[in-house]
Amino acid sequence: MPTANPTACLLVIGNEVLSGRTQDANIRFVATRLGAIGMPLSEVRVIPDIPERIIGTLNEVRARFNHVFTTGGIGPTHDDITSECVAAAFGVPWEPHPEAWARMEASYKPGEFNAARQRMATMPRGAALIDNPVSVAPGFSIGNVHVMAGVPRIMQAMLDGLLPRLPRGVPVVSRAVHTTGLPEGRIAEGLAAIQGRFPDADIGSYPFYRPGGNGVAIVAKGIDAQRADAAIAEVSALMRELGATPVMGEPPG
Amino acid sequence: MPTANPTACLLVIGNEVLSGRTQDANIRFVATRLGAIGMPLSEVRVIPDIPERIIGTLNEVRARFNHVFTTGGIGPTHDDITSECVAAAFGVPWEPHPEAWARMEASYKPGEFNAARQRMATMPRGAALIDNPVSVAPGFSIGNVHVMAGVPRIMQAMLDGLLPRLPRGVPVVSRAVHTTGLPEGRIAEGLAAIQGRFPDADIGSYPFYRPGGNGVAIVAKGIDAQRADAAIAEVSALMRELGATPVMGEPPG
Repeated sequence: MPTANPTACLLVIGNEVLSGRTQDANIRFVATRLGAIGMPLSEVRVIPDIPERIIGTLNEVRARFNHVFTTGGIGPTHDDITSECVAAAFGVPWEPHPEAWARMEASYKPGEFNAARQRMATMPRGAALIDNPVSVAPGFSIGNVHVMAGVPRIMQAMLDGLLPRLPRGVPVVSRAVHTTGLPEGRIAEGLAAIQGRFPDADIGSYPFYRPGGNGVAIVAKGIDAQRADAAIAEVSALMRELGATPVMGEPPG
Repeated sequence: MPTANPTACLLVIGNEVLSGRTQDANIRFVATRLGAIGMPLSEVRVIPDIPERIIGTLNEVRARFNHVFTTGGIGPTHDDITSECVAAAFGVPWEPHPEAWARMEASYKPGEFNAARQRMATMPRGAALIDNPVSVAPGFSIGNVHVMAGVPRIMQAMLDGLLPRLPRGVPVVSRAVHTTGLPEGRIAEGLAAIQGRFPDADIGSYPFYRPGGNGVAIVAKGIDAQRADAAIAEVSALMRELGATPVMGEPPG
């Protein structure tokens, strides 16, 4: 795996994921998009809406990873505290952002841009806006921290708008082959030998359980597509040797 | 929220979640089960299959939280390295576990309990088994760390078997009310006032976007069901004041 690629950490901020109320729907999207620009996600943390936890975690991960992405906690209600916690983490004032304020004020009828909504236009000093084409209220970047909404549809639009401003690494390519009826325990030894011959391809083994049959998917990832292809070709040959039928790609469904 | 409740951290170990290949299906289940026994999930981390990351994170979180649960990385293939990393984190030998070995050997035909499968019966010295009623190969507990499979069906069976052995706190109860057509920005001010009157109920506001109409769900959580009910009754009254129709419970779907 490339070591020169920038690293990324995602902070999912919200009691609702930790309580089990809400199924996370953001990790996979962020992971896929960042992998595609060569900034693979190196860690995810899910943390509660508690100021000292948010501030402490932010300061830890922004020092440790090249870029930090947050989701959640930038709405208008009392439990939306991400923005002021980011200001506290950076030690800068939390104050009205003129451009965010103007955009939001223009989007409401006279008198409806109330105090709760004005909080969404209040940001750490020095924040650069991340556009919100869905519901106006912007996210923002400050330093290497990118603050986005938690609602998946809004987060996705924000991230897609932000991506062109981010540094790029070498995208990681992924190749897969799968088969049914072959347990991991039978392919493991040969697979380890293939991994030994392809130190530049990161080979993962993932059992699956489907109505159409249980089986195993083998994925080779790396920055060199030809090497990933070659590793998967060897895995396919190994599957055949063991009496199974390899099928290129991930299992359906 | 109760401060005397034991705290829990979940470590999701696996490149496949960080790359976006796999949608996490374990966080919500673990969160719900632990909340029900009064050991609410306080943090989740998703980390890659890299020994130093697993060992370092384990040692950090096992010192910080009362209990740590891991999912993933205990299968038979070369990328399954959780078990030996746990041994390294605890500074104990990684060696065949007699009971795990006996169970697994008995489950295979003669000659099929091969070296790869024997790895699944190799554990940190002192490990206490977590039963696997789905596919035999056990998980284990050592100290305050509980090591489970990543495949959701197996993880769920393991956790349900483990729960009776865990300490219990005061379960958190949750009450909800929702309404359509009322944006968060209009209810925010009144909601903050209610939160102020109910410091013992943790009130969250969650917008939803559904074909049947957009709206907002308000959730009150705490260890006192009557207080949560009372908070939600005030929220319902607030919704009515604002011209919306409150519907008890979470929105459907």
